Amino acid sequence: MEKRGFFLVIMAGGSGTRFWPKSTSRRPKQLLAFGGEGAPSLLTQTLTRFDGIVPQNQRIIVTTQSLQRAIADEAPRVQVLAEPQGRNTAPCVYWAARAVAEKNPKGVMLVMPADHYMADLPAFRATIEQAGKWAEEHSDLVTLGVKPSRPETGYGYLRTAEAGGGACRPVEAFVEKPGLEKAQEFLRAGNYLWNGGMFLWRADVILAAFDQHMPEMRKAWEASSGRVETAYPQMTATSIDYGVMERAKNVVTFPLECGWDDVGSWTSLEGLADALNAKRAGGVVTGGELLAVQSTGNIVDAPGKLVALLGVSDLIVVEHGGAILVAKKDRAQDIKLVVEEVKKIRPELA
Amino acid sequence: MEKRGFFLVIMAGGSGTRFWPKSTSRRPKQLLAFGGEGAPSLLTQTLTRFDGIVPQNQRIIVTTQSLQRAIADEAPRVQVLAEPQGRNTAPCVYWAARAVAEKNPKGVMLVMPADHYMADLPAFRATIEQAGKWAEEHSDLVTLGVKPSRPETGYGYLRTAEAGGGACRPVEAFVEKPGLEKAQEFLRAGNYLWNGGMFLWRADVILAAFDQHMPEMRKAWEASSGRVETAYPQMTATSIDYGVMERAKNVVTFPLECGWDDVGSWTSLEGLADALNAKRAGGVVTGGELLAVQSTGNIVDAPGKLVALLGVSDLIVVEHGGAILVAKKDRAQDIKLVVEEVKKIRPELA
Repeated sequence: MEKRGFFLVIMAGGSGTRFWPKSTSRRPKQLLAFGGEGAPSLLTQTLTRFDGIVPQNQRIIVTTQSLQRAIADEAPRVQVLAEPQGRNTAPCVYWAARAVAEKNPKGVMLVMPADHYMADLPAFRATIEQAGKWAEEHSDLVTLGVKPSRPETGYGYLRTAEAGGGACRPVEAFVEKPGLEKAQEFLRAGNYLWNGGMFLWRADVILAAFDQHMPEMRKAWEASSGRVETAYPQMTATSIDYGVMERAKNVVTFPLECGWDDVGSWTSLEGLADALNAKRAGGVVTGGELLAVQSTGNIVDAPGKLVALLGVSDLIVVEHGGAILVAKKDRAQDIKLVVEEVKKIRPELA
Repeated sequence: MEKRGFFLVIMAGGSGTRFWPKSTSRRPKQLLAFGGEGAPSLLTQTLTRFDGIVPQNQRIIVTTQSLQRAIADEAPRVQVLAEPQGRNTAPCVYWAARAVAEKNPKGVMLVMPADHYMADLPAFRATIEQAGKWAEEHSDLVTLGVKPSRPETGYGYLRTAEAGGGACRPVEAFVEKPGLEKAQEFLRAGNYLWNGGMFLWRADVILAAFDQHMPEMRKAWEASSGRVETAYPQMTATSIDYGVMERAKNVVTFPLECGWDDVGSWTSLEGLADALNAKRAGGVVTGGELLAVQSTGNIVDAPGKLVALLGVSDLIVVEHGGAILVAKKDRAQDIKLVVEEVKKIRPELA
């Protein structure tokens, strides 16, 4: 059921250098499509998830000015707020909250990253409706905590008050990305959830929280009469987690069990291979055709190309535009180092 | 000095699947250029080597009908003999000898493969002139034996009568590709030379040798009145080495010391990297641009592309047309297996 009081805020300012050369500064991760010809971009998938929940004219995408055009092309019907510069998520949420409050001070903001994956859409939507209703009726900051499916060391965690219990749980603490042992402990304990960066709150509630924990935000905003070009440089460049959530007492979470996963790097696609229908003999293929001869465990994305592998394993092989990347899978996190070098020698390809 | 009695015969029928995807059935190895933009093809380099030695109108390229057009485009001024089917080198040499004899029965044929490399052109030309003079004045089958620079197991060898001595040496035996230990022994012994498949003889001398050792060739030729379509299927499909050279008693060799090397596979380019000006940090690059991050010993050919390597070693990375190959270097000889598979699924790329 579409809710007149619901607003969708998608944070889409990321650069996604980890997917280079498929992603570039002009075509970041959120605009990429994985899973073959005609697959929708991650951003479009994110928007579509809220069809029937949030009206089209109550959707906002926050991105950077350099991406404004590309985002508007991808989502022509959605309002775009273009940040003069990236200053982490706190200023981004503040601006969006102001924009929502202008239309409806009691409006419920569903704040979501642009680039995630959900296997079970009905489950996601059920949780959203439940958590949205709570946010509408309470002066709480609601976050969605993802039920962990593995001892993941790449995410932060929410420690909740109790392992079992009802759908809504108070959040006791925000926990930094753990080591493997800690992550295994969290998984066993049962009262730890992945922090997926998904929030629901009324505009008036989050603005009050900003006033309490980051009063400089209102000051910068009002001194600039709401002109972001002037306000932004004076806002504290920090995350909404660090600036508000970790300090607030009125944080609750709704556990989410919908096969949620981050699409954070080439190797994260391996976990999504079945869902993307991207598994082949020899590896995971999210673009192009793979011919694997005595080769295993590779990740391939080269739309329109035949990629032949001979006697190689655990490689990432990507072709896009004028660039080809061949990387060892265990170096996936270092692709950003490559991009730094590319910026120097061939900036048009970075 | 150009010699009116010299004829150049280039054998250019090979398919060169080992260089796929740079080489394809329509663009075999001899038509490839290594060493960057504007570099001449191997065939053109071979032809150029004989400028000033063999007149332009006394040059013949023997190739297959399927390559006739591409070869003619590459060498428009040269006579092309297009074989109805590939039947190894003996029929090819027989036909070429007939073609030369028609113009000049005492003409000296310089029979060369299309796709080799020479570092020291003056040394090559000096040996050619010396060996050509010998062939002109003697009824001998002259072969050029390459002085080995390493214990190569990929070539056949000529065993010569003496280690030191003059420029012209009798050949005692043709030796098959040896194992490493044997090859090391040959290198030490000093009286073994690589069999580079380069021959010099008068047309009448080689035709007499065919009559003696492969009399069926003349029979097939005369029964077909010189129509190759009819003659070829009746000729014995064997190599000139096996059919004639190994049986003949009048074989001599001139040792060649000119940095000769076969361009037989991607890995053979490593030995030629300096000469091709193709050495870079991270590997050998014969096309495109390489950005190597913690990567060593790779071979890259991707004209017009930036190839970024991260944490990988000893790979062959090639992009051409609609195909990308990533292979372990020690599997270079198995690229033909890949091509067999490509023929099945994407014949237009093979």
